[in-house]
Order: sequence, then C-alpha cells, then structure tokens
Amino acid sequence: MQPRGIHHLGVAVEDLDEAVQTYERLFGARLEQRETMEAQGVEAAAVLVGESRVELLASLGDETPVGKFLAKRGPGMHHVAYDVADLPGALAELDAEGAELIDPEPKPGLYGMQVAFVHPDSVHGVLVELVSNG
Amino acid sequence: MQPRGIHHLGVAVEDLDEAVQTYERLFGARLEQRETMEAQGVEAAAVLVGESRVELLASLGDETPVGKFLAKRGPGMHHVAYDVADLPGALAELDAEGAELIDPEPKPGLYGMQVAFVHPDSVHGVLVELVSNG
Repeated sequence: MQPRGIHHLGVAVEDLDEAVQTYERLFGARLEQRETMEAQGVEAAAVLVGESRVELLASLGDETPVGKFLAKRGPGMHHVAYDVADLPGALAELDAEGAELIDPEPKPGLYGMQVAFVHPDSVHGVLVELVSNG
Repeated sequence: MQPRGIHHLGVAVEDLDEAVQTYERLFGARLEQRETMEAQGVEAAAVLVGESRVELLASLGDETPVGKFLAKRGPGMHHVAYDVADLPGALAELDAEGAELIDPEPKPGLYGMQVAFVHPDSVHGVLVELVSNG
C-alpha cells in the first residue's frame, strides 16, 4: 500500500476563526472549505498553505474526540491524512500487516470524502487518517 | 509570506530503525536520507510516503529537545516544516507580524538545508520549521 502523499495535516484548535486568521496572516493561507460535522463533533476549516492543506479542527463539545484531545494535550497537531487511491484495499493491506484499524471500513468524512483512521499505537504515536475522494 | 507547501512532517520516535521499517511496511515508504546531527541532538531519517516526506527523529540523549519532547509527550508528531523560497525574507515578515521566532536567523539544518523554527505559541500549538534549500 502506498499513499499518493499527505492529503492534509489535522490540527486541533481552540478558536476556529482565530486560527484561520493566523494561517492567513502568517502563511498567506487561503480558506478552501469549512464544514460542521455533527457526527464527528467538529467544525473544520481546510486552509491551503501553498500547495499543501492544513485542516483546522474545533471541537463541538468537551466529550468529542477533538474536545478530549484539547483537554488532555492542548491545541496542536492531531493527525496526518494520507491520500489513497483505493481505500478498502489499503485498509485490507494494513489489516494484513497487523495494523490496528480504528475504522475497519471507510466512513463518510468531511467534504464528501471517504475516510478511515489507523490507531496511533500502530504508527509510533501518530494518528493516521486515510482519505479517498471516491 | 507564502510557503510553497509542506516540506516534511517531523515525527519523534523512540527507535529509528524500527520506525523506518514501520513506514516501509505499512506505507511503502522509501528511505531518502539519514543523518546524525550532533548540534541538534538528533538522528534523523527522511522517508518518502508517496510524494510527501516524513522526517523521523530519534534523540541522542534525554537533555536534547527531542529527548525532552519524548519524555513529556511520548512519540508522535513533533513539527511541520514549510518550504520557503526566501528564508531571511520569510523570517522578517513573520517578525513584522509579531510571530515569536525561536531562530531569528537561518541556521544549518539536516541535509544541508537552511532552517529556522517558529514558536508554537504563535501558531496555535504547532511547532513550525521553515526550510530553504539555498
């Protein structure tokens, strides 16, 4: 399994508007998309830093995954997402390699993508998301 | 100031060989470069995941920056590096915007690059490195 590359870097923030403004001001970032996803308990803003994408994530409540992350570790890098051509195939390969899959099957993610998370215990402490556009 | 994009994602790991093998096995990564840099207290391995680069960082001792990071937070994402065309110019612009620069001037980094770090307090908890190849 080989991803095409990093799709985005996911960053947990306390204040989404303020974070978007910081990225615009410091890094000339452009807001690409913004969406609230109740099922994941997040409001997200994708910003483009040059050719790369940073996904800023604000929590919709203390008991959401991002809310718990913020309470425990404070704002900062939350996950890295890799773009894969064949998400079910990638998950099958990772499973065969013994990786712990948080999502054994693709699920709906932000912006209409199909996504699945791999447990950080299998990737040296890094929460990995795999995303596919179709 | 606008970076060209993400140059690499820096990840702190406990065991460099093991981490390189994990990235090769799970993500088909290819080892690009490996280097020990005494001045920064790290041994680093750059691996390519598709078109993107992950810099795996092992500490040379408990009192190094990466050693302290590992002791406090455990293995995981450590910094994100953005590629800039004009590093001194980028630092001047960030300084003018009030960003806290860990390195007000470029310093030698891994693989012959010029680098400078921006304090996470200025970027919502994310340690940012700016890198330039010349």
